[in-house]
Amino acid sequence: MMSTTIHDVAAKAGVSITTVSLVLNNKPSRVSQATKERVWAVAEELKFTNIRRSPLTGRGKGVLGIILPDIRNLFFSTLCVSAEQCAKQHGYGVLIATSEDAVESDMDYIDAMYEKGVLGIMMAKAARTTQQNEKKLQQKIIDTSLPFVTIDRHLDISNARSVMGDNKEGAALAMRHLIGLGHRRIGCITGPKQDVVSFQRMAGYKEALQEAGIAFDESLVSIGDYRSSYGAEHLPYLLGQDVTAVFCFNDMMAIGVYKACRAYGLKIPQNLSVVGYDDIAFCESLDTPLTTVHQPTEAMGEAAAMELMAMLADKPSHGPLLFRPTLKVRASTASPETT
Amino acid sequence: MMSTTIHDVAAKAGVSITTVSLVLNNKPSRVSQATKERVWAVAEELKFTNIRRSPLTGRGKGVLGIILPDIRNLFFSTLCVSAEQCAKQHGYGVLIATSEDAVESDMDYIDAMYEKGVLGIMMAKAARTTQQNEKKLQQKIIDTSLPFVTIDRHLDISNARSVMGDNKEGAALAMRHLIGLGHRRIGCITGPKQDVVSFQRMAGYKEALQEAGIAFDESLVSIGDYRSSYGAEHLPYLLGQDVTAVFCFNDMMAIGVYKACRAYGLKIPQNLSVVGYDDIAFCESLDTPLTTVHQPTEAMGEAAAMELMAMLADKPSHGPLLFRPTLKVRASTASPETT
Repeated sequence: MMSTTIHDVAAKAGVSITTVSLVLNNKPSRVSQATKERVWAVAEELKFTNIRRSPLTGRGKGVLGIILPDIRNLFFSTLCVSAEQCAKQHGYGVLIATSEDAVESDMDYIDAMYEKGVLGIMMAKAARTTQQNEKKLQQKIIDTSLPFVTIDRHLDISNARSVMGDNKEGAALAMRHLIGLGHRRIGCITGPKQDVVSFQRMAGYKEALQEAGIAFDESLVSIGDYRSSYGAEHLPYLLGQDVTAVFCFNDMMAIGVYKACRAYGLKIPQNLSVVGYDDIAFCESLDTPLTTVHQPTEAMGEAAAMELMAMLADKPSHGPLLFRPTLKVRASTASPETT
Repeated sequence: MMSTTIHDVAAKAGVSITTVSLVLNNKPSRVSQATKERVWAVAEELKFTNIRRSPLTGRGKGVLGIILPDIRNLFFSTLCVSAEQCAKQHGYGVLIATSEDAVESDMDYIDAMYEKGVLGIMMAKAARTTQQNEKKLQQKIIDTSLPFVTIDRHLDISNARSVMGDNKEGAALAMRHLIGLGHRRIGCITGPKQDVVSFQRMAGYKEALQEAGIAFDESLVSIGDYRSSYGAEHLPYLLGQDVTAVFCFNDMMAIGVYKACRAYGLKIPQNLSVVGYDDIAFCESLDTPLTTVHQPTEAMGEAAAMELMAMLADKPSHGPLLFRPTLKVRASTASPETT
């Protein structure tokens, strides 16, 4: 069989030889990302291998960015690794930035990534923010005109798509489980005020209470920040409210509650039922494995990368982009003590 | 008081007004990093504020890179966050890459970061590698000529400094503790073959055995990979060797051992003592808090960033760069069962 030449690739892709050379050698050029994708696809199809490929990305397609609030939270690091693996399989590298949950850092790192020439950005934005900064962030996303995939947040702008979990439904699942076990005073440790995810989970918390005819009691709600230390520090307050169960809006805070329970000599679930959210890898390693709302974290990371790459190739959304959570019932929940 | 002008800064720093402008406005230029640092220092000293500062980095000094094997391992994500915080306080941003523990990815991301213009790189290299790739990696670090800080690894080259934990001493501490409790058959789950860190910890394991006059028994050693799943999968083998204690070369694998013990109905420490390494945040949240070798992880991350920034400013090493571990005795270790 005759080996494929650069002429064959150019003819089939409908571009010049120069264009093929620029693309396959990963040279700076004005060639659109859609054309680049087509050239790579044709080169692959025709098994054209007489090219120097950048060692970086296998196919040297370039680098994507991902901005996350806290990589010490296993939900985000797991999501990030699956996005990175998916991107790498498709010839892209991924650079990561951590905002320390400050929207100012989100904006700074969008600037930095833009300056460094990343092709597009995935972002789970900081939970702690003001309305004014929210608007600035949105404007910055529009201004960069980079392809953008937001995680757990929808923006109605042309250069952004979104990958979401159904947070309201997830919280309702957790609450229906606790109510079904007989709990009536169910404490809740939320994310920060103004955090969209926390707002949606709170809607699910309230919905399940309403379904069961239980009045919403604001004194059972403790505003958290998704960090494990918060769960530990604020459990005493909820215990003071005579709760028999605590629903934490993420697993990290639930793990903090575990630590505090040990300090108070409380047994889970005999003295207190605990439910988390996310289903991070540690949940199963706890002596009393944590009942939690499972998010398809790896699928969400992969979807974020696929969406971003689809945007780069001018392809329509892969969908579905709303991921349904499920409840993982483990050992941390039981009927309340009959005292 | 007269306000400071750009002339004052230029005079005091001994450079031209153009240079001051280039530096403080963060424009691309051939100005050396040492000169840039001096200009920033003078501008700060003279409280010269009539400049547009990039929102990114406070002082817009630029971006550093950090390459880590696995950000789902809390040791690395904690180290990374503290390096990032330290860099940010000094006006730098940090972009992160994860190698998925493959040295090929280390090299790819060095290329990518170099291309993207990061000023210097911190790296905990992949544990899984071949001798040939090791040499390639070392050559690449020399070739980029970027300032480099290696974590847990020393390279005798001019553009690299290192931040290390005393791994041999840490492992010896853990083993002396177990031997002191009366354990004689102590299983050990290591890192990958050829991993320097694992090699050093193994030296400490052997040293403590020798001190106690216990013969080294290779059948008690299980070669791991630092992932939690490994700890879980390989515990049965060690139990088959009648061990009364297991020393895991990191906490992630110890947490895997916890999970397996639960599956086997074994109680920690009554039926099996377990020791980890690193002291990640989860150790204290386990119902049976893990005895482990504490690494000063945050100090190590900060030191890596400080070293890199010192290199950028042509300053000597801050030292000391060898961090001593300590043993945290918690509830997962006890004397072996007397049966």
